[in-house]
Amino acid sequence: MAEFDRVWVGADFLTMTDGLGVLRDGALAAKEGRIAWVGPRAALPAHSAPVVDCGGAWVMPGLVDCHTHLVFGGNRAAEFERRLAGATYEEIAREGGGILSTVRATRAATEEELVAGALPRLDALLAEGVTTVEVKSGYGLELEAERRMLRAARALGRERRVSVATSFLGAHAVPPEYRGRQGDYAAAVAGMVAPLAAEGLVDAVDAFLERIAFTPAETEAVFRAARAAELPVKLHADQLSDGGGAALAARFGALSADHLEHASSAGLAAMAAAGTVAVLLPGATYFIREERVPDVAAMRAAGLRMAVATDMNPGSSPARSLLLMLNMACTLYRLTVEEALLGVTRHAAAALGLADRGALAPGMRCDLAIFRVGSPAELPYWMGGNPLAGRVVAGQDA
Amino acid sequence: MAEFDRVWVGADFLTMTDGLGVLRDGALAAKEGRIAWVGPRAALPAHSAPVVDCGGAWVMPGLVDCHTHLVFGGNRAAEFERRLAGATYEEIAREGGGILSTVRATRAATEEELVAGALPRLDALLAEGVTTVEVKSGYGLELEAERRMLRAARALGRERRVSVATSFLGAHAVPPEYRGRQGDYAAAVAGMVAPLAAEGLVDAVDAFLERIAFTPAETEAVFRAARAAELPVKLHADQLSDGGGAALAARFGALSADHLEHASSAGLAAMAAAGTVAVLLPGATYFIREERVPDVAAMRAAGLRMAVATDMNPGSSPARSLLLMLNMACTLYRLTVEEALLGVTRHAAAALGLADRGALAPGMRCDLAIFRVGSPAELPYWMGGNPLAGRVVAGQDA
Ligand SMILES: [Zn+2]
Ligand SMILES: [Zn+2]
Repeated sequence: MAEFDRVWVGADFLTMTDGLGVLRDGALAAKEGRIAWVGPRAALPAHSAPVVDCGGAWVMPGLVDCHTHLVFGGNRAAEFERRLAGATYEEIAREGGGILSTVRATRAATEEELVAGALPRLDALLAEGVTTVEVKSGYGLELEAERRMLRAARALGRERRVSVATSFLGAHAVPPEYRGRQGDYAAAVAGMVAPLAAEGLVDAVDAFLERIAFTPAETEAVFRAARAAELPVKLHADQLSDGGGAALAARFGALSADHLEHASSAGLAAMAAAGTVAVLLPGATYFIREERVPDVAAMRAAGLRMAVATDMNPGSSPARSLLLMLNMACTLYRLTVEEALLGVTRHAAAALGLADRGALAPGMRCDLAIFRVGSPAELPYWMGGNPLAGRVVAGQDA
Repeated sequence: MAEFDRVWVGADFLTMTDGLGVLRDGALAAKEGRIAWVGPRAALPAHSAPVVDCGGAWVMPGLVDCHTHLVFGGNRAAEFERRLAGATYEEIAREGGGILSTVRATRAATEEELVAGALPRLDALLAEGVTTVEVKSGYGLELEAERRMLRAARALGRERRVSVATSFLGAHAVPPEYRGRQGDYAAAVAGMVAPLAAEGLVDAVDAFLERIAFTPAETEAVFRAARAAELPVKLHADQLSDGGGAALAARFGALSADHLEHASSAGLAAMAAAGTVAVLLPGATYFIREERVPDVAAMRAAGLRMAVATDMNPGSSPARSLLLMLNMACTLYRLTVEEALLGVTRHAAAALGLADRGALAPGMRCDLAIFRVGSPAELPYWMGGNPLAGRVVAGQDA
């Protein structure tokens, strides 16, 4: 008799182990929070564990949202309204809008307020089957406020049944007190890595390399600090212009380079060689009406793994639905259904350096998303609506 | 003492009576399913009715989705997947895809199956605060199957607490048995109007005027039948090319002309003179990647009322979220927040010829949507997530 804690049957499975890994009429068994067995139902070993009948649903790995700015103070709905009413970016900046308005609101918030503000956004993701979420800092832009954001992110993982991976993004924007001294601020950010890492608040270090943000040299200074702290890096790269971000990320063996609308083919090739995942953020492309989309054909040709994430943030992607991002990745970027679904499971896990999830195989975490759909293609097909029928975290209903 | 059945307080209201009609710290009273009083809480007459405290929410008229093809058999997720995998339209047509695959699946379904298939889609709309939904026929394309679709639409209004307005859209596509005899089919559609109307199944008559669909003369034949049956008309107009649809709709005093990406300014002016509402369907623009968007500036200049709807249908807009359509109307068409919200309330009601809803004023139906948001702009701002805190239909929690 096999010793399982729980068994799921009455379902078709997407194991995501080989493409979609379609397993019709399958069975999956959990033991101590991990997958102990998965295969055709007819081959399920004899056991005495409780059995969950999924009633014909599709079961896949719990979804992974590998790029979010989920923790922030306030929101920018008023700025959205002003822009639609014809206000220019200059006017909005004069009125105190833009990213620095989020920095002000975030600095003014307590850790508890940051958690309370983030929870409804997190709950929207969980309601669609997300079981792992990455959360970046980057609206504090000073040690104390960055720490508070990262502590709030960690707290989210205690408030809800979800794994939270944190990224320190001190190099997100230059705070007002450093205006004209961007290099000094980048150096200060590099200096924040070690203390925050020592507190266990940082799973990865991220930066925003862009004409309007940080230079390659400044980014490298931050990344060297990450390396010294033995932390992996990620990079907001080549979103608005080709700043050589893809190649720089690859040079540092980054887990991922994200956005990539303007990445060069040399940059993409370097990423492929380094095993760096390409994180695609179609919500931002859509929301800021960027006409250039990532060169998915070149990414395919280079053999890059592509992930898809919400980029949930108040300025350029107020997206609270990872399923909608699947639709946008297909509709706007022309990802195939298989690519899109790999993008929120196995490849998203890879973008976080998490080898224990994103696929259904023995030894992996038993994180499941159970969907009431007729076919996997329905997940990216619909815009809106939520077919989630169940969410399992480490073998337990969540 | 005023005689009310129920009173709502502890809320800011959008009455939608004069633009947004923002009413801070307001009160609203219902009597026999209608609004009996609305105004500042401090001015609320003495009464003895039960009081609902909305806890600081925003209360607005129940949302109206004024253009849907909610009832259909099957879905087209497989076709979506095939297209992303590189299949051409010709290949998909050869494989039996396209609108005729929906016609086959719809013809093969019983009324009960059509209702069962539509309910989850309807529930997704209701979950966001929709209280009135329009539902078109148009996948039956023969009297019996069109009748079955319309009966299913009426049944939805009994299965759930929602008002259903039906539109007979026999002139949606030419069924296979009429291939090469499109004019004969249009004449047959005209002949279906009277019997379906006699059964009380038709609130309006719609048609699809387009190069790839029906000609102006065929559309007019159907509209004359509507006029003979004393039914109002609507028109799918100028979506893919300027077919003079806006002007034709205006000539028949249509309630609405819908899509309008390619409408001429003369057509828009004619609509304004006729009081025809412009129904905007940004989900279709987005999903089929149409580059041309409706000329909103010209619509404003002409003084047209603009509505916003899901166009929920399996081929060109599998959209199950009216809130997402608000975001798309703002993001893709640059509607203001006020225009977008009028588009799913007052102007959407006008597009259905319903003068008793879409605004909060004495005598109107007490259909409410109660949202937990900090400001009305948050409704179009976010992509995904659902802030609905309550839905009231004819004065009752729904
Ligand atoms: Zn980002
Ligand atoms: Zn339509």
